[in-house]
Amino acid sequence: VFLINGSDGAALEATDRGLLYGDGLFETIAVINGDMPLWDRHIRRLQEGCRRLGFDCPGEDQLHQEAKSLVSDDSRCVLRIVVTRGSGGDAYRPPKATSPTRVLHRRSWGPRPESFWSQGIRVRLCDTRLAVGSPVAGLKHLNRLEQVLARREWDDPDIPEGLMLDDTGRVVEGTMTNLFVQRGKRLITPPVDRCGVAGVMRGMVMELAHEAGLELEQGRLTLNDLDNADGLFVTNAIIGIWPVRELDTTSYEITAETRRLQSLLSGIIGSRP
Amino acid sequence: VFLINGSDGAALEATDRGLLYGDGLFETIAVINGDMPLWDRHIRRLQEGCRRLGFDCPGEDQLHQEAKSLVSDDSRCVLRIVVTRGSGGDAYRPPKATSPTRVLHRRSWGPRPESFWSQGIRVRLCDTRLAVGSPVAGLKHLNRLEQVLARREWDDPDIPEGLMLDDTGRVVEGTMTNLFVQRGKRLITPPVDRCGVAGVMRGMVMELAHEAGLELEQGRLTLNDLDNADGLFVTNAIIGIWPVRELDTTSYEITAETRRLQSLLSGIIGSRP
Repeated sequence: VFLINGSDGAALEATDRGLLYGDGLFETIAVINGDMPLWDRHIRRLQEGCRRLGFDCPGEDQLHQEAKSLVSDDSRCVLRIVVTRGSGGDAYRPPKATSPTRVLHRRSWGPRPESFWSQGIRVRLCDTRLAVGSPVAGLKHLNRLEQVLARREWDDPDIPEGLMLDDTGRVVEGTMTNLFVQRGKRLITPPVDRCGVAGVMRGMVMELAHEAGLELEQGRLTLNDLDNADGLFVTNAIIGIWPVRELDTTSYEITAETRRLQSLLSGIIGSRP
Repeated sequence: VFLINGSDGAALEATDRGLLYGDGLFETIAVINGDMPLWDRHIRRLQEGCRRLGFDCPGEDQLHQEAKSLVSDDSRCVLRIVVTRGSGGDAYRPPKATSPTRVLHRRSWGPRPESFWSQGIRVRLCDTRLAVGSPVAGLKHLNRLEQVLARREWDDPDIPEGLMLDDTGRVVEGTMTNLFVQRGKRLITPPVDRCGVAGVMRGMVMELAHEAGLELEQGRLTLNDLDNADGLFVTNAIIGIWPVRELDTTSYEITAETRRLQSLLSGIIGSRP
């Protein structure tokens, strides 16, 4: 079910810069009992993205009203919001006065084994690497070919995620998740200033780390750091926290602190999946 | 005027992966007296792009037929072809059987001062840099936020192009053009294996260099190399060759070899602009 600029319908102008250049942003929002517990974080990130790309973000009230009209009767679903710069301009050059396009799309929650949350997942290492030094690093923008190519690499339904290195060999994130690595009482997640996405759930977990007895750190990670980790987990706004049980042939325990973070998270966003 | 999957109309499904992820490619083709002199090069690049992204390219005959039906009565126009992976799949993960979307769009040739070709242009250096190590380097794909942000930096209509450095400080290309630097009898253009676009006109000029008395070289370029150049020019499939007369405060002559290349090109694609 779609709302495009406030109207029903699932079609978009072929001149939209979102299609022509990926000139826009998106948010993937968990809806739980008709509520969107992380709404504020999603909207703040969207606004920050619009600021960095240089066009006006649709009003928060309008987006919220439209979102509620789409999801109000759903106990659990996923709401995707796409905001593009709209049409116009002269090729890459954006128009001075923009009229952004907003696409709201309600999707089913989708089947995800409960065991991914409770027992952890298997992940693999992707060959596709992230380019380094992107001027749009950190943003949830529509230029996602790196993730598409990485996700194309495997087919095994028992491996729900793959980790990606950047061009210099640092470990950055999953194709659709952020990565956290625990070593002793330190919880490390890679910075996203050179590539990668500043996930909403990443931000949430960073704030909860202290309460789970961990010292949070943004730091560059190598594969060697992963080998020597006490535990790994991946996060996003829909899945919450999935502990990593296996990375290719390396096995991990699920740490008590990871369990504690899951428990803290459940109190805020409801139980998973 | 649009043809989308062979039908009139200017609307696209909001689920198209071209919009969601920039999961596709495009070509911008010069039409001159209803003819498309560089058609083969465009199609070969499109096919190579589809191969690297991993989906079937629409048939060349079909594309050609549709292109001709759009442009046949035009003496001079621009044809844009967008090919996306279509809809489907599970988020980033592409569907196994793809049904690519093709959008053909005829646009006016647009006003470009004849002097840009004959007397050269002023260019500026952009602050926005290209990320390095892209798995889709070289392709004319739909992930073009870097170019959009770079082109947003200036407003002066007398400066039709800006040059971009990569994250390591090497000079790569213009926002919508490739760059060539002449030093003595050497003609140097940066490689596009780590970032940048393998322009159709770039390929054409590389093949013509020898005939213009120049030794062609793909090499990494610094700003210092630009300072010490005998001449610069930029290329794309629509503009052909624009000599650079001024880069910020540095002035350049238009070399005899650049004139020779323009002349060779005119013989193939007709006079410009």
